[in-house]
Amino acid sequence: MNAPAKISSKDKTISPAERLWAMAAEPMAAVDTIILDRMQSPVGLIPNLAQHLVGAGGKRLRPLLTVSCAQLCGDDGQNAHKLAAAVEFIHSATLLHDDVVDESALRRGKKPANLIWGNSASILVGDFLFARAFNLMVETGNMDALGILSNASSVIAEGEVQQLAALRDILMTEEAYMQVIRAKTAALFAAATEVAPVIAGRPEAERVALRDYGLKLGLAFQLVDDALDYGGFESALGKSVGDDFREGKVTLPVIRAYHSANDTDKAFWKRVIVDHDQRDLDFEKAVSLIRKAGALDSTFDMAREFAADARDALSIFPDNEWRNTLQDLADYVVERIS
Amino acid sequence: MNAPAKISSKDKTISPAERLWAMAAEPMAAVDTIILDRMQSPVGLIPNLAQHLVGAGGKRLRPLLTVSCAQLCGDDGQNAHKLAAAVEFIHSATLLHDDVVDESALRRGKKPANLIWGNSASILVGDFLFARAFNLMVETGNMDALGILSNASSVIAEGEVQQLAALRDILMTEEAYMQVIRAKTAALFAAATEVAPVIAGRPEAERVALRDYGLKLGLAFQLVDDALDYGGFESALGKSVGDDFREGKVTLPVIRAYHSANDTDKAFWKRVIVDHDQRDLDFEKAVSLIRKAGALDSTFDMAREFAADARDALSIFPDNEWRNTLQDLADYVVERIS
Repeated sequence: MNAPAKISSKDKTISPAERLWAMAAEPMAAVDTIILDRMQSPVGLIPNLAQHLVGAGGKRLRPLLTVSCAQLCGDDGQNAHKLAAAVEFIHSATLLHDDVVDESALRRGKKPANLIWGNSASILVGDFLFARAFNLMVETGNMDALGILSNASSVIAEGEVQQLAALRDILMTEEAYMQVIRAKTAALFAAATEVAPVIAGRPEAERVALRDYGLKLGLAFQLVDDALDYGGFESALGKSVGDDFREGKVTLPVIRAYHSANDTDKAFWKRVIVDHDQRDLDFEKAVSLIRKAGALDSTFDMAREFAADARDALSIFPDNEWRNTLQDLADYVVERIS
Repeated sequence: MNAPAKISSKDKTISPAERLWAMAAEPMAAVDTIILDRMQSPVGLIPNLAQHLVGAGGKRLRPLLTVSCAQLCGDDGQNAHKLAAAVEFIHSATLLHDDVVDESALRRGKKPANLIWGNSASILVGDFLFARAFNLMVETGNMDALGILSNASSVIAEGEVQQLAALRDILMTEEAYMQVIRAKTAALFAAATEVAPVIAGRPEAERVALRDYGLKLGLAFQLVDDALDYGGFESALGKSVGDDFREGKVTLPVIRAYHSANDTDKAFWKRVIVDHDQRDLDFEKAVSLIRKAGALDSTFDMAREFAADARDALSIFPDNEWRNTLQDLADYVVERIS
């Protein structure tokens, strides 16, 4: 999981994500050790299943954010590493449950755990990882960090339920969509970055700035994810293109395409989303309608705006390598493929 | 959910559980208010589903234990009520996930939530309630209580996974069975009672005593539950008799019946549990083999011993109505039907 040893943090030809990995290689190795240690259990199914998901293949983006923001705040202590591991455990727990809920065919480019060990194991190991996240937070002794991450956890679950309730609802509003992605995705990004100044004992202004950075980065990230589901490549995303479409999940590109559609095309959307009656080439037609409506471009534009906001949020920090790379990461989240 | 108004705590003709309810009516009303308040969400599916499970029909045994032990420790503060509500939320979350895992047909005498709203909703609302439990704990500001309940949460999940891995394993040992019920059931009872002296700021000896009381009470409770699955009545338990058998869940009565069985009967157990090939009257035959082996009686005997241990654990407390009723409750858990 470590960054390739040859990459220098000064090398501007590599991506900001790779640069951050190189800069944070040491603390992230410490985080990895905590993750591997805390997913152990005498009940063998737990480490086996957790290893499949957590142990390899993940981008570790969220703990990387916690660690990098802690470094930005001058903190490289073990408590920051524990919070980073806790963030990854919370994320992993939601992925395990999402796989059962979404009936995904691919997760991080691999067969999801529930298709190997069954839904029951994924549900229960998810619960285990979630509880272990709280064990780690308790060990830090920092009640503010616990408050931030437990609050994010209930907001995430709320967002997941809202998304479930809105499944196949072609009349979902942009406002409702933004609520869902703010809750299910951006809340954890915001918590991952906000706990860094908290554990570092930094002033309120840095806490506000880093929470804002994470929130905007998370919104940009999810918008791009939702756009790529109609235009990316499986290998780049590690998930199947067209997943949202097949599940009847209504995302911004669909909302915008639907609103600019004529009656014939509206009937198409109702058939494939509301009636969930999908036939050969329907996905290709959906992509074409979305492109015609300019809905991919406008989704990427919105993501770019949030990325710019994320960049701005960090302007209160001194001009140094951590700040600059975190700022570059915001742009990179949008430009990674589009 | 409140105890009937007419019941007096002095009335020895009513059960210890009813007496505790009468004694704790006021703090339990406060707990109810917290529970109802904290299961609210703008996402309507959450309170609807939570109301079905949490809002009515539950025995509220675990929060009743927290509240009663807090009273025993001289604490009637809001933080004790919040911890009691958190305990009930953790329990409710595990029930929602258990329903999906076990494919139960009845829960608390009602159709389980997943058969009404679907597995996905049960998984995600379970996650929500679990997160809300931690929100409540954070509000108390008591890191020790957080440690106890977050530790119990990971132990519970571990126990649930161990039980899942041992499904249809007729060779499961008594030791493994005891580990499972200690983890999946007794750990939350122990945490529910231990947090009371912790939030009340009582000395370590009371913490040890109340943890021991909860642990033994929980073991007795689960042993009786497992015995009743082969000999109780649906209306009394609020769950279907024979659930464990149909799921291929190996419990103490089965382990003991199997070990004293002849070859023909061993073949029967292998067919119904390991091969999971169950036919008409197989359950009746299982009950008869278990009775013939004396395995129900010996399971109840073991439960009685744990109940006696629970009673003894409270002997360090002064002789008062709270202590005496909690002690009587331990015996009642075993004698409620047997």
